[in-house]
Amino acid sequence: MWMETKVDVEASRSPASLSRRVLNSLLVCTGDMKYLDQYIQDKLFVLQLVVWGLRGVARVILANNPLSGAVILAALYWASPWQGLLGTVGILASTLTAVVVGQDSADVAGGLHGFNGMLVSLLMGVFSSAGDWYWWLLLPACLGSVTCVFLFSGLSTLLDRWDLPAAVFPFNIIIILYLLCTGPNNPYFPHHPTTPPGATESNVTELIAVQVMRGIPLGVGQIFACGDLGPSLIILGAVCLYSPLLAVHALLGSAVSTLAGLSMAVRHDSLYSGLSGFNGALGCMAVGGLFFTFSWRTHLFAIASAFLSAYADIALSNLMGTVGLPACSWAATLTTTLMLLLTGSLATYRIPIGQVMAPEQNLRSRSQWEAGNTDERESTDV
Amino acid sequence: MWMETKVDVEASRSPASLSRRVLNSLLVCTGDMKYLDQYIQDKLFVLQLVVWGLRGVARVILANNPLSGAVILAALYWASPWQGLLGTVGILASTLTAVVVGQDSADVAGGLHGFNGMLVSLLMGVFSSAGDWYWWLLLPACLGSVTCVFLFSGLSTLLDRWDLPAAVFPFNIIIILYLLCTGPNNPYFPHHPTTPPGATESNVTELIAVQVMRGIPLGVGQIFACGDLGPSLIILGAVCLYSPLLAVHALLGSAVSTLAGLSMAVRHDSLYSGLSGFNGALGCMAVGGLFFTFSWRTHLFAIASAFLSAYADIALSNLMGTVGLPACSWAATLTTTLMLLLTGSLATYRIPIGQVMAPEQNLRSRSQWEAGNTDERESTDV
Amino acid sequence: MWMETKVDVEASRSPASLSRRVLNSLLVCTGDMKYLDQYIQDKLFVLQLVVWGLRGVARVILANNPLSGAVILAALYWASPWQGLLGTVGILASTLTAVVVGQDSADVAGGLHGFNGMLVSLLMGVFSSAGDWYWWLLLPACLGSVTCVFLFSGLSTLLDRWDLPAAVFPFNIIIILYLLCTGPNNPYFPHHPTTPPGATESNVTELIAVQVMRGIPLGVGQIFACGDLGPSLIILGAVCLYSPLLAVHALLGSAVSTLAGLSMAVRHDSLYSGLSGFNGALGCMAVGGLFFTFSWRTHLFAIASAFLSAYADIALSNLMGTVGLPACSWAATLTTTLMLLLTGSLATYRIPIGQVMAPEQNLRSRSQWEAGNTDERESTDV
Repeated sequence: MWMETKVDVEASRSPASLSRRVLNSLLVCTGDMKYLDQYIQDKLFVLQLVVWGLRGVARVILANNPLSGAVILAALYWASPWQGLLGTVGILASTLTAVVVGQDSADVAGGLHGFNGMLVSLLMGVFSSAGDWYWWLLLPACLGSVTCVFLFSGLSTLLDRWDLPAAVFPFNIIIILYLLCTGPNNPYFPHHPTTPPGATESNVTELIAVQVMRGIPLGVGQIFACGDLGPSLIILGAVCLYSPLLAVHALLGSAVSTLAGLSMAVRHDSLYSGLSGFNGALGCMAVGGLFFTFSWRTHLFAIASAFLSAYADIALSNLMGTVGLPACSWAATLTTTLMLLLTGSLATYRIPIGQVMAPEQNLRSRSQWEAGNTDERESTDV
Repeated sequence: MWMETKVDVEASRSPASLSRRVLNSLLVCTGDMKYLDQYIQDKLFVLQLVVWGLRGVARVILANNPLSGAVILAALYWASPWQGLLGTVGILASTLTAVVVGQDSADVAGGLHGFNGMLVSLLMGVFSSAGDWYWWLLLPACLGSVTCVFLFSGLSTLLDRWDLPAAVFPFNIIIILYLLCTGPNNPYFPHHPTTPPGATESNVTELIAVQVMRGIPLGVGQIFACGDLGPSLIILGAVCLYSPLLAVHALLGSAVSTLAGLSMAVRHDSLYSGLSGFNGALGCMAVGGLFFTFSWRTHLFAIASAFLSAYADIALSNLMGTVGLPACSWAATLTTTLMLLLTGSLATYRIPIGQVMAPEQNLRSRSQWEAGNTDERESTDV
Repeated sequence: MWMETKVDVEASRSPASLSRRVLNSLLVCTGDMKYLDQYIQDKLFVLQLVVWGLRGVARVILANNPLSGAVILAALYWASPWQGLLGTVGILASTLTAVVVGQDSADVAGGLHGFNGMLVSLLMGVFSSAGDWYWWLLLPACLGSVTCVFLFSGLSTLLDRWDLPAAVFPFNIIIILYLLCTGPNNPYFPHHPTTPPGATESNVTELIAVQVMRGIPLGVGQIFACGDLGPSLIILGAVCLYSPLLAVHALLGSAVSTLAGLSMAVRHDSLYSGLSGFNGALGCMAVGGLFFTFSWRTHLFAIASAFLSAYADIALSNLMGTVGLPACSWAATLTTTLMLLLTGSLATYRIPIGQVMAPEQNLRSRSQWEAGNTDERESTDV
């Protein structure tokens, strides 16, 4: 951020930079809001923790903006206060654990240790059949969130060899282990069994087009295991605040994923609830602008990634459904990892994991860098 | 190839090289036929595509010779025109995709992006219960073949750290995902359920020795999912054209694998159809001469690899059969990967993946290299 | 060892070293007994093989002391002569194979190629429903042990990138493959089906506290698949001979693991037999002193590792139980691998795999090293 600011200052000497400065001041609440990190550096620990936590909330949906996080958390509390509480507990437990076990402070400040814990807690609440406000659930929620920090750290070391992110692998592993551990009829922590999307015996009624259309924005909400339209739209808005490009890809991915679901004749309520859509949304967002500089090529790859995530999700759901488990976001995580490993034309657009910013900033930093290259060449000519 | 030619030219000055030159001109249609790559370099794209595709066909059975590929493709069309068509579509779809997404051109020219797509298409046809000439099947066949290119590229990056080939991992993953995705009773793409080889309740009749013997060459054909004796023998002949050593190992591996199947009392029709044999054949071929210089030691390791592949295949078939899935060639692929990772005496025979040629050429290049070393030492002495 | 001796000799010139020398002579039969390697270097091969084998026996429980190995083997023969024989066959088969296929001689001498083979043989005996002294079982026991060497070598190459040990991954893979291969009702090698710990319909009686307490030392014995109290206590004693710290962690881990089992309401006989405890014991031992220098921090991490191993074991048992398979020591092995990958405060205590010794020696070598650093600084000052 400091370097960027310096570049801006230098740029401001030229008359052409006025519009860029105006744009910058408008964009103060969007993007990564990295200047906030400097601002809170010497503030109270509680304030820092809040910012780190909110970044973690946004990280779930690949955003990195505490304001987006706050909006999303509000939407979750609106959808279900109990779920909101579980999410809050999860994010605090895992972020605090990361501080205690001495994880890299930049990672903690970026919210990288929070989002897995939050997802684990949220999903524990969703799968629990003990009803809301079953306070004992906070125990496994905390333990699961704490374990996420261990898994995130370990997997990062493992995947670092290929410059891959640990992403939501920890969440996917922990929630599966929790569901397996408690089993179908545990006396303390009972949970709902899962119906695989291929179990189509319930498809007796006609498919309602409006419901399917409604499933597309719900697919964005389902990333937070939220199945209500209002909160889902707010979540979409929060993503838009971070990066409009990412929001467009979220909707696009959810639509593509629903299409894939239709082509495989999955269960209707899977389409209606948005459960068919969220893997595609994640797969599309990750490739379209976040980990790769946006262009029409990466856009096409993002659509391919959404299709692949969607089909892989149906396959994995059918597989894991045979032992009563959900497929969570395994499909999107594996597909994104695959896309990051690709060689060929997509690899030329890849942004190193350490330098990933909001899609718009990725684009800007690339063009600035190219412009810088041109300036340099010109100055050498003189 | 250029270097090899140069070596030959230099060698031709000595009188002892006559027999080697005669042998070389006889061997013009065998081995890797690398001179063809130079020849077609400035020809029509369609001609290039044909050669790349035929190399890909041969690659399925670890050969790398367009003539072998053409013979194999003819055998497949003879066994079943529909299967032949599916294979052709698969290989074209994946090779073209590899060109479009900008994969390494040497890999594409070597047919490395074709064989997975071909296998996926072939197996989709075999498992489909909609009968031959069900044209809709071309849709998933194309999509699956396209996805193979993505997986091949991603897995290559991953496995490159240990100099391991991506081999048929993409095929194995995609076909499993396809079968899971469509499920047991999909309205559009229905397929046969799989019977695990351990389900021995059908073993009421006596075992017929002739049928078991017949299963050994069929095991070679089953690498292409072909269960007819005639085409299987032609496929074996095509391998022999590429490398007689490889063909011997294919038969040997299939026999060893059938023996392993007998020792575990698998279903009789699994033995008769050659399904027991093909994993052993692949495991034996890979170790005996292809990825390791041939010697009596590697020969013993090849037999061990065949046994290991066969037993692992029975185990995986029983495991995956519980959810109605076939084990495909997971066993052989995993075993070969394990063998390539081994340290100790086998590792000294290992050929780096980038320099793998036909077994006979591997032997020749090693002995030439050793002879070269001796010459050098002698010239230093003078 | 040679360097250490030299250090001792140098140290003996100072008067403060007397107590250390007395301690050293007392400790002659404890710890790694590395001086034995030098002593047997030019002795008969059979004698060497015995020492290597006994080291391998001890390696199962993370010890590396031939005397501990001998005591443990005696305990196994006491518990069941047939199981003792199977274990002996397994360790000899795999150690000899490692010699024949030319594995690194230091690894062979350290018993690293023996323990997986021994475990495979032991577990084959335990799961076999053909009764004791079913001599045909020696065939798969030998084959399985031989394969372990291949897997150990291959996985070591794979995991070496992250300085991770292959540990008991080979055993876990081979025993699962064997059970899958023979299936539930194989005519030659029948075996018992596995009941997952979550199948709680048998929990009709009250939980007996004494039985649960008895399960804690049994958990240590279950590492060798031994369910009798006497031999289990002897095994614990053998660990204590190697390193008292390790023995304490074994008991602690087993207790923690039993606690975790209680919290998840697993089957009572799983608690009584010690099957709930052994994964926790292994996870606790690995972190508490062996792969990490002992301190109160690593101690806390060891307890966390025991909990994690225990819960992961319940989860994996429930998962693998659906296809009739046991979870073996997958949970402890995966958890230990995760702990070794962790960054942050635990990583600072990590000992490189090549330098791992008995926990007490790890502590000593660290303090000596630190003392050496101080001496050096002082001598520089002079």
